[in-house]
Amino acid sequence: MEFTINQIAAMLGGEVHGDGNGKINMLAKIQEAKKGQIAFLSNPKYEQYIYSTQASAVIVKKDFVARKEVTSALILVDDPYVSFTVLLEEYHKMISFQKSGIEQPSYIGENSATGKNIYRGAFSYIGNNVKIGDNVKIYPHVYIGDNTIVGDNTILHANVKLYPDTRIGKSCVLHAGCVIGSDGFGFAPQGDGTYKTIPQLGNVIIQDNVTVGANTVIDCATLFGDSTVVQDGVKLDNLIQIAHNVEIGKNTVIAAQAGISGSTKVGENCMIGGQVGVAGHLVIANNTSIGAQAGISKSIETEGERLLGSPVFDIKEFFRSYAIFKKLPDLNYRLRELEKKVQNSQENPEEHSFSVDDAK
Amino acid sequence: MEFTINQIAAMLGGEVHGDGNGKINMLAKIQEAKKGQIAFLSNPKYEQYIYSTQASAVIVKKDFVARKEVTSALILVDDPYVSFTVLLEEYHKMISFQKSGIEQPSYIGENSATGKNIYRGAFSYIGNNVKIGDNVKIYPHVYIGDNTIVGDNTILHANVKLYPDTRIGKSCVLHAGCVIGSDGFGFAPQGDGTYKTIPQLGNVIIQDNVTVGANTVIDCATLFGDSTVVQDGVKLDNLIQIAHNVEIGKNTVIAAQAGISGSTKVGENCMIGGQVGVAGHLVIANNTSIGAQAGISKSIETEGERLLGSPVFDIKEFFRSYAIFKKLPDLNYRLRELEKKVQNSQENPEEHSFSVDDAK
Amino acid sequence: MEFTINQIAAMLGGEVHGDGNGKINMLAKIQEAKKGQIAFLSNPKYEQYIYSTQASAVIVKKDFVARKEVTSALILVDDPYVSFTVLLEEYHKMISFQKSGIEQPSYIGENSATGKNIYRGAFSYIGNNVKIGDNVKIYPHVYIGDNTIVGDNTILHANVKLYPDTRIGKSCVLHAGCVIGSDGFGFAPQGDGTYKTIPQLGNVIIQDNVTVGANTVIDCATLFGDSTVVQDGVKLDNLIQIAHNVEIGKNTVIAAQAGISGSTKVGENCMIGGQVGVAGHLVIANNTSIGAQAGISKSIETEGERLLGSPVFDIKEFFRSYAIFKKLPDLNYRLRELEKKVQNSQENPEEHSFSVDDAK
Repeated sequence: MEFTINQIAAMLGGEVHGDGNGKINMLAKIQEAKKGQIAFLSNPKYEQYIYSTQASAVIVKKDFVARKEVTSALILVDDPYVSFTVLLEEYHKMISFQKSGIEQPSYIGENSATGKNIYRGAFSYIGNNVKIGDNVKIYPHVYIGDNTIVGDNTILHANVKLYPDTRIGKSCVLHAGCVIGSDGFGFAPQGDGTYKTIPQLGNVIIQDNVTVGANTVIDCATLFGDSTVVQDGVKLDNLIQIAHNVEIGKNTVIAAQAGISGSTKVGENCMIGGQVGVAGHLVIANNTSIGAQAGISKSIETEGERLLGSPVFDIKEFFRSYAIFKKLPDLNYRLRELEKKVQNSQENPEEHSFSVDDAK
Repeated sequence: MEFTINQIAAMLGGEVHGDGNGKINMLAKIQEAKKGQIAFLSNPKYEQYIYSTQASAVIVKKDFVARKEVTSALILVDDPYVSFTVLLEEYHKMISFQKSGIEQPSYIGENSATGKNIYRGAFSYIGNNVKIGDNVKIYPHVYIGDNTIVGDNTILHANVKLYPDTRIGKSCVLHAGCVIGSDGFGFAPQGDGTYKTIPQLGNVIIQDNVTVGANTVIDCATLFGDSTVVQDGVKLDNLIQIAHNVEIGKNTVIAAQAGISGSTKVGENCMIGGQVGVAGHLVIANNTSIGAQAGISKSIETEGERLLGSPVFDIKEFFRSYAIFKKLPDLNYRLRELEKKVQNSQENPEEHSFSVDDAK
Repeated sequence: MEFTINQIAAMLGGEVHGDGNGKINMLAKIQEAKKGQIAFLSNPKYEQYIYSTQASAVIVKKDFVARKEVTSALILVDDPYVSFTVLLEEYHKMISFQKSGIEQPSYIGENSATGKNIYRGAFSYIGNNVKIGDNVKIYPHVYIGDNTIVGDNTILHANVKLYPDTRIGKSCVLHAGCVIGSDGFGFAPQGDGTYKTIPQLGNVIIQDNVTVGANTVIDCATLFGDSTVVQDGVKLDNLIQIAHNVEIGKNTVIAAQAGISGSTKVGENCMIGGQVGVAGHLVIANNTSIGAQAGISKSIETEGERLLGSPVFDIKEFFRSYAIFKKLPDLNYRLRELEKKVQNSQENPEEHSFSVDDAK
C-alpha cells in the first residue's frame, strides 16, 4: 500500500495539520514509527513520543494541543484508536485478498460446488456434497467433511477440520487446527465396568461473524437433527472446549482454554474468562461475566452478574473471602487465644472479678 | 435406512402396540420427531411429549401406561434408552461404513501393509514398516509415523498424528487433531541456567476400545522399551494432556482439558473431571472420582474416594469448607466482636459480676 | 547402532571394569535391560537391580563399590545420568538423521529457498518468499506461510502450522500440531453489543534452542512491527496458550495447559506449572516459580518468589491457609461454641463469679 497523508485523512474523515503530501506505506506504533509510517496517539501517557517520533504522520484527537514542536504531520479525528483500527483493517484486507485461485494438488469430492473468487490451498480436502460460498479462503490442509456448507467471505486457516454435516455461516474466521463437529463425549456405562460408545449423530452450526481460535474444539450434538450452536458474532479464543449440544448466545466472548460441558446454554453478551469451566446442563443468563479460572456448577439465573471462584459467587464477595483466606492462620491463632482466655476466665472467675489489673 | 416398525421391534426384542407396518427412516428426539421417525421415552418428565409427538413410533418401557391418547405406534422394551442406543449404533455403522477405498494423492512408505476393506483418505500419510489392520479408516491428513501398528476396526479421524513406533489397538476411535507419541517434557538443567533436551525414546501403547478426543496429546515414554500406556476401554475427551510414562487403567474416563503429569499411574474405572490436574509420579487408586478443576498432588491410596479441591480432599468436606469460605468476612467479623467482648469483660469484670442488666 | 563397551567408554571418557569387548546395541532401564543393552545406575535406591540385571554393561559413578557380585561390565564415570543422556542423544541423532530428501507430493511456492540436507515430508507446504536453513526437518503436513524464516537444524514435526511472517531460530523443536502466529484475540466492542475484529498484523519470533509442545498455540502481535517473542532456550510443553504480544524470557520453562494472556512479559529462568493462568499486561520477575493451577492477576516484582493459589501468594503461606481451609467447619463450630460461652457468661455472670465448680 502507498497513500498520501491527505488520502488517508480523507478516508478517515479527518483534518490534516502539516504537510499532507507525504507518502505512507506502513502502520506502526508511535514509539517505533519511522519515515513513511503512520502512528496514532490515543492514551495520554504516550504523549511524550509524539515529540520524538519519526512517523510521517500521527493520528490524534481533534482537541490535541501540542506542548512542544511536532515534526510529523497530524491527522485530527474524533477517536484516533478507532481510526487506526480502520486503517489496520484496510491494510489487512489488502494483504489477505492476495490469496486466490486453486493450488495443486487439492481434492474435491462429488457434487460439491464452490463460489466465486475462492482460494483453495494445496492439500486442502473438500468431501462430497459440499457447498462453499463466494470469496471463501481455504488454506492448505483444511479438511471439509461431506455435506458441509460454508458461507460467503469465511476464512478457514491452515488445517481447520470440519466433520461431515457442519454448517458455517458468513464472514467467519476459523483459525488453524480447530476442530468442528467431533463426537460428543457420550458413553453408556455397562454392568461390567466398561462403557459403550453412544453414536453422535447431530452436527455443529456456526452462525455469521463468528471467530474460532486455533486448536479449539466444538463437538457435534448427540441426536439426529440436533445441533451444537454458536450464534452470530461469538468470539472464541484458542484451545477452548465446547461440548455436545452446547449453545453459545450472540456476541458472547470466551477466552482461551475455557471449557463448556454438554448441553449447557450460555446467554448473549456474556464474557467468560480464560480457563473457566462450566458444568453440563446449565443455563447461563445474558450479560454474565465470569472471571478467569472460575468454575460454574449451577445455572446463573440473574442477568449481569460478575462471578469468580470455583464454584463461583459474586466477584466482590469472592475477593473479600479470599483476603481472609490468606490470613486464615492468623484467624485461627486469634480464635485459639480467645478460647484460652475464655477458658481461663471461666476456670478462675474470681481472678477476673476481683483483680482488674490482671486482665490488663 | 428404512425399516418397518415391526422390523425394528424384532431387532430390539420388543413388542409392538399399534400399527407395526409404518416405515421408519430416521431417529429423533420425542419433542421434535416427525412422521417416519422413531423416538424414545425414558425419563418420566418427558412423558407429556408422547401425547403430542408426530413420531411414527416411540420406544417405551414395557410397563408404560398411557394417560391420554397416543397416536404413535409403541415398541415396548425393558430399557428404552438402551434400545435407542442400539438403533443409533446401527445407524452410525451404516453411515460410517460408507467410506472405503483409497483416495489420491495419498502416501505409503516402504514395507508397510494394510488389511482388508480399509479407507485411506486423500493426503493421508503412512510411513515405512507400518502395519494397518482390517476395516481401518484413515481420514484425510492423517500422519502415521514409521514402525507403527494400528489394530482392526480402528478409526483415525482427519489429521490424527501418530509419531513413529506407536501401537494402537483394535476398535479404537481417535478424533481429529490428536497427537500420539510426541516427546515427553524432559530437560536436564545445566549449570548456566539453560536446559539440555533429554531425548525421548519410548513410545505410546493404546490398547483396545479406547477413544481419544480431538486435539488431545499423549506423550511417549522417555526410555527405550518404556511406554506410555492407555489400557482397554479408556475414554479420553478433547484437549487432554497425558504426559510421558503415564499409565491409565482400564475403563477410566477423563473429561476435557484434564492433564496427567509424567509417570503417574491412574487406576481402573476412575472418573476424572474436566480441567483436573494430576501431578507427576503419583498412583491413583481404582474407582477414584475427581471433581472438575481439582488438583491432585499426592497419591490416592484408598479405592473409591470422591475428591475435590486443589489440592483435593473429600468432596463433601470440600463443600462444607467452601460454604464457610464464602462467609469468611462474616466469620472474621464475629471473631472480632467476640474479641472485643472478651477484652471488655476482662477489663471491666465488676460490670459483669454485678450488673446483669448490662450484659443483656 | 552397535558399539563395543570399550567404544562407549571412550565416548564417555569413562573407565571399564570387566569385559570391554561385549557388544551393545540398545539402551534400557536397569530393571529391564537384557543382553546387548546398556543401563545406568545413578539413584542409590536402584542399587539392588545392578546385582540382578542382565545388561551387558552398566554406567556407574566412579566411586561405586559393589556389595555383591555384578555380572555386567561397568563403565565408571563422573555422573552416570549425564553420561546416559549423552548416549541417548547420540542414538537419537542417528535415528532422526535418517530422514532426509523430499517426498512427493510436496509444495513449495515462489522465491522460497531451502538449505542443505533438509527433509521435506509428503504433503508439506512451503509458501512464497520462505527461507529454510540447513539440516531442517519438515515432516508431513507442515504448513509454512509466506515470508517465514526457519533457522538451521530446526525440526518441524508433523502438521506444525506457521502463519505468514513467522521467525523460527536455530535448533528449535516444534511438536506436532502446534500453531505459531494465529491472530491475537482482539475485538473492539461496538455500541450495539457486537464486536469488530481488530486486524492482527504483527508476527511471532521464536529464538534459538526453543521447544514448543504438541498442539500449543502462540498468537502473533497486534501491530505491525511488533512481535510475540519466545527467547532463547525456552521450553514450552503441550497445549499451552501464549497470547498476542507476550514475551517469554530466556530459559523459562512452562508446563502443559498453562496460559499467558496478552502483552504479559514473563522473565528469564521462570518455572510455570501446569494449568497456570497469567492475566494480561503483567510483568513477571526473573526466577519466579509458580505452582500448578495457580492464577496470576498482578505483576510479580521481586525475583525468586515461589507462589501458589488463585490469585497467587507465597506458596508456604498458601499451604498454611489451605490447611485451615480444610478445617473451616471445625473452626466455625469452635467460634460458635465460644460465642455461646461468652454470651452465657455475660448473661449469668454470678454463676461464674461464685460457683467455680460449674465451670470445670
